[in-house]
Amino acid sequence: MQTAYRPIRVALLGAGSVGSQVARLLIENKEELAQRVGAELELTGIAVRNLDSKREGNLPSHLFTTDAEALIESSDLVIELMGGIEPARSYVRMALNSGADVITANKALIAAHGPELFDLAEQLGAQLYFEAAVGGAIPIIRPLRESLAGDKVNKVMGIVNGTTNFILDRMESTGASFEDALREAQDLGYAEADPTADVEGFDAASKAAILASLAFHSEVPVEQVYREGITKVTALQIETARESGYAVKLLAICERIPASDGQPEGIAVRVHPTLIPEEHPLAAVRGAYNAVFVEAESAGQLMFYGAGAGGTQTASAVLGDLVGAAKRHLAGGPGLADSVHANLPILPVQAVTTRYQVTLRVTDLPGVLASVATVFANHEVSVETVDQNPAGKDSGALLTITTHEASERDLDSVVADLRSNAAVQNVDSVIRVEGI
Amino acid sequence: MQTAYRPIRVALLGAGSVGSQVARLLIENKEELAQRVGAELELTGIAVRNLDSKREGNLPSHLFTTDAEALIESSDLVIELMGGIEPARSYVRMALNSGADVITANKALIAAHGPELFDLAEQLGAQLYFEAAVGGAIPIIRPLRESLAGDKVNKVMGIVNGTTNFILDRMESTGASFEDALREAQDLGYAEADPTADVEGFDAASKAAILASLAFHSEVPVEQVYREGITKVTALQIETARESGYAVKLLAICERIPASDGQPEGIAVRVHPTLIPEEHPLAAVRGAYNAVFVEAESAGQLMFYGAGAGGTQTASAVLGDLVGAAKRHLAGGPGLADSVHANLPILPVQAVTTRYQVTLRVTDLPGVLASVATVFANHEVSVETVDQNPAGKDSGALLTITTHEASERDLDSVVADLRSNAAVQNVDSVIRVEGI
Repeated sequence: MQTAYRPIRVALLGAGSVGSQVARLLIENKEELAQRVGAELELTGIAVRNLDSKREGNLPSHLFTTDAEALIESSDLVIELMGGIEPARSYVRMALNSGADVITANKALIAAHGPELFDLAEQLGAQLYFEAAVGGAIPIIRPLRESLAGDKVNKVMGIVNGTTNFILDRMESTGASFEDALREAQDLGYAEADPTADVEGFDAASKAAILASLAFHSEVPVEQVYREGITKVTALQIETARESGYAVKLLAICERIPASDGQPEGIAVRVHPTLIPEEHPLAAVRGAYNAVFVEAESAGQLMFYGAGAGGTQTASAVLGDLVGAAKRHLAGGPGLADSVHANLPILPVQAVTTRYQVTLRVTDLPGVLASVATVFANHEVSVETVDQNPAGKDSGALLTITTHEASERDLDSVVADLRSNAAVQNVDSVIRVEGI
Repeated sequence: MQTAYRPIRVALLGAGSVGSQVARLLIENKEELAQRVGAELELTGIAVRNLDSKREGNLPSHLFTTDAEALIESSDLVIELMGGIEPARSYVRMALNSGADVITANKALIAAHGPELFDLAEQLGAQLYFEAAVGGAIPIIRPLRESLAGDKVNKVMGIVNGTTNFILDRMESTGASFEDALREAQDLGYAEADPTADVEGFDAASKAAILASLAFHSEVPVEQVYREGITKVTALQIETARESGYAVKLLAICERIPASDGQPEGIAVRVHPTLIPEEHPLAAVRGAYNAVFVEAESAGQLMFYGAGAGGTQTASAVLGDLVGAAKRHLAGGPGLADSVHANLPILPVQAVTTRYQVTLRVTDLPGVLASVATVFANHEVSVETVDQNPAGKDSGALLTITTHEASERDLDSVVADLRSNAAVQNVDSVIRVEGI
């Protein structure tokens, strides 16, 4: 096709599951993309570490190179899909310094070095796009940055890791243990051989930091995200939850905490297994799907749902960013500046107020319930429901106590006192409850 | 606050439920918005038809004026929230001609005159923003225009009218008739005294035309949207649907129809009551909420959910657009060009292939089922399930037949033949089924 402009040279760094799909779509949809952009997008090369690695798809071999620096220097736009911090960070800096806009799906890089890279882009009048870094194909970055730019976001709550959602979903639907569900996820390719980044919540924590920084216009270092993974979630916890009308989900929760008692307004960001009422839209998010729930002052409740991972799905988000970057390249003009003007302090998880479900193994004697209830009352934690079940032969009773809203601080004190209470054999489980 | 730039003058046309909220938020959040934009947004005036009308909120009376033209001429950005075609269309043209970007929530205007207004804006290097025209606070326009710009959308299916969703939801949960549920909606302020635009599907058809034009990069005149309202939906239909595992929703459905039999690739756009399986995410959209489901080739299935109407909710979308327009005003550069390069033909509803549920009243004699089944078979419409129930004293039996995928053309022929079949007393209901 003839266009008014000369082709835009696009460099691709990385040829993994997302990179190979991006390359395929750039080649297969060349005509259609040229019509949308108004100029051809010419894939000038694909930088890889090793030319001999086996690749997905049938990409033309002449595109591959190990010389990422030369490729970057000769391109107008750079797509970084290598993952990890180095050399991705150096290459992104090099690309921005050369005047290229950069598109990345690298959540670890954005969570760890976002402010540095955004500053650099702003100084140079370049742009950094990262829609694909959170929620795969789901448009969530752009809505937060742009659509809600005139609103005040109070809470973002999301299922942002498909691997853990798949595992928890299998545990719920089959009664499997964590270990068995993990193995199934690994067999199906949903979990990696070393699943730590997913099951310990590191991946979700990176995404939580990115979402919080956009939602609250503040810098959110990933180290300040409170993080609990799902490795300790038991089949019994999930069954108990279901019996009381809840699903267990690994949620990334970013919220604005109002000023109180001399503590300034701030934000708290946390990732942990959470009980969600079955009728909440997030509870219906099954398998490896992702969803992000947003509460804003004017807009009210919004939810964004879709495939949170996968090569072609993530490639869709990368190409959306690429079309935007290409239009900007042709016409000039501003991109998306990520203002951190609000600069709210990050509060510790102890500043959070939420509900809890506490499961205790107690001796089955008269007065135990009163004794346990007193512990909660002593710390002004109000109890909403108590369920009592025999825990099996000779082992007393199992109490499942759901609280009204209480602070982490007070709940910590309750749990410490319960542990030293003579009638309490064990505190089996403490899990937060959201979405009520 | 001190900013590097002089204030940006913002004109507001209309002070109804959305306009009064936009004005309130512009005044209340002046400081915060100035920080986000980098310049103050100064509300220079609010054009109304009658200065003496009673208004919501306590907006400063000096802002009101009846001289919309003078207000437009003296402003940098114009927000049109009057609704209707004229004088809104003339004012939008005047604003664009004066060099102002325009933000509108006017779906009727965009559906009827979008192409003309987009052309004008493009000629003048101005921009027209309309996130608030579909789905209230839900970011759906921007994701379709930008996030999916590198993907190929195959289908958009949405609950885009809160009034009809509320009515259908009440009919389902209380067994009420359409008339009773409509009266309840009117009492609660969800439906207008003259509910025609909502219940006959005109509002949804405007939104469907807008969504289809963005999804398929083609001009979609609203007159070519096939439209059936919900006034003929009966309590019995809803009960029958529920018994077979479906919810009844008024859906706007925009889909790409592949080329076949000499018919070129095209798109079909339709609004009608539809059965959706209860486990489909759209079935769980309750009350006056909206949701839009998108299927794209690479991204897969996405869903966007939130408040589809309401003054503050829609104001959130208007302010998001306003912040974007204000940044563009400061920095210059391109906005969102809505390409219609694909220019796919709009096909009649007869080109659509979907499933159907047909409810028949038949004489309760041996051989009737065979006779009815033969009618379907004669037109190559494959039957998936048949449910037979006594229809009440002396009145034969009620057959509920759900088909596999069939074309509208073939189904029309089946219904015509059923009507002339001696064993069929009446064809009570024909309703399309989606989401399987």
